[in-house]
Amino acid sequence: MSKKAVIVLSGGLDSTTCMGIAKAEGYDLYPITFHYGQRHNREVEQAIEVGKYYGVADHRIVDLTFLKDIGGSALTDETLDVPTETEEGIPVTYVPARNMIFLALASAYAEVIGATAVYTGVSAVDYSGYPDCRPEFIHSMEETINLATKAGVTGKNILVKTPLINLSKKETIEAGLSLNVPYELTTSCYNGKESACGKCDSCLLRLKGFKEAGSFDPIAYEN
Amino acid sequence: MSKKAVIVLSGGLDSTTCMGIAKAEGYDLYPITFHYGQRHNREVEQAIEVGKYYGVADHRIVDLTFLKDIGGSALTDETLDVPTETEEGIPVTYVPARNMIFLALASAYAEVIGATAVYTGVSAVDYSGYPDCRPEFIHSMEETINLATKAGVTGKNILVKTPLINLSKKETIEAGLSLNVPYELTTSCYNGKESACGKCDSCLLRLKGFKEAGSFDPIAYEN
Repeated sequence: MSKKAVIVLSGGLDSTTCMGIAKAEGYDLYPITFHYGQRHNREVEQAIEVGKYYGVADHRIVDLTFLKDIGGSALTDETLDVPTETEEGIPVTYVPARNMIFLALASAYAEVIGATAVYTGVSAVDYSGYPDCRPEFIHSMEETINLATKAGVTGKNILVKTPLINLSKKETIEAGLSLNVPYELTTSCYNGKESACGKCDSCLLRLKGFKEAGSFDPIAYEN
Repeated sequence: MSKKAVIVLSGGLDSTTCMGIAKAEGYDLYPITFHYGQRHNREVEQAIEVGKYYGVADHRIVDLTFLKDIGGSALTDETLDVPTETEEGIPVTYVPARNMIFLALASAYAEVIGATAVYTGVSAVDYSGYPDCRPEFIHSMEETINLATKAGVTGKNILVKTPLINLSKKETIEAGLSLNVPYELTTSCYNGKESACGKCDSCLLRLKGFKEAGSFDPIAYEN
């Protein structure tokens, strides 16, 4: 019997790796992608390409420009600069409660289509100081989801799966390469241009990961 | 010193009562209203009127038509009939994980504006069998919110306030009348026409509440 998983798919390296892992775990893939006025808007286009690569039956693109409207993050607020090196503490690229919002919406979708798992590519290792990438948040969120939904009340729980939570970027890339994850279709740069900048927090983590995994990043970078 | 509260305001009787209670508790009011293709779309117009009545500095209207797109509820799916009497179990008007989604978005907004409370008008008494109206859901959600946000990490917790959770509709109306809550601006009917139908689950509860409170509902009903 087929089983369904909703994948929170940004079009970045981590969530695309989750597509490969969920597929390997036997799930039919139902990606959901959030468009929230992020500078790296290119991610949405990349996410659509990733969905096509995996031949998904349905791919939901959800408008959340509200997150841009309320501001508070360098990822969505054009008046704030994206930092060019890794920061201490909670960085300005933090988007308020983003993963909570994504998982809440993904769970509602899971409930409607009868999916039993929601995958998110958060990592507590390279988590950049975002509060909603920590395991304690994920555990609490899973409990809340099952209290909020019909699925939970009727005993058909929705699992929140975080296969990358204890993996470094290197280990994520190694896992993905072994599953033929199409990294050439992904983008991670916070600046969202045609070529990745190679300088932002996210580019630096990605490049370091490929190097440590003894591989090469297949995407284009600015000179 | 002023303190801010985000109010999840639907334009219905309960959430409008929360506006009156939060004001009485000394908060500056920041309502947030969700537009999700509900049949009772009139609610959004009513919510705007309620916001004006209270002279709010800002009122966020958030597009969540995604909830209509995924379907699964008679409130948003025009192919399902709204029942004309109270049902057993989880009713077809249940919108998947609606309160979880609303509270997640309201908390992100609270974090950005520095609000310390989020009010929601859920009631466990007249809760119509919706899983996300139960106290155990609210407690879990509050914990999740504080794990997901910078506010929680830095010790400035966001409280989820549910002043109606143990109140019957009668008691809610009594509380609201004592605070001069403008019930003439509210609407509760699931069918969302100019005049309330007086027959749906929501109308029946409202009418019963006014009657038990020894008062009259000031809005118009169909003959």
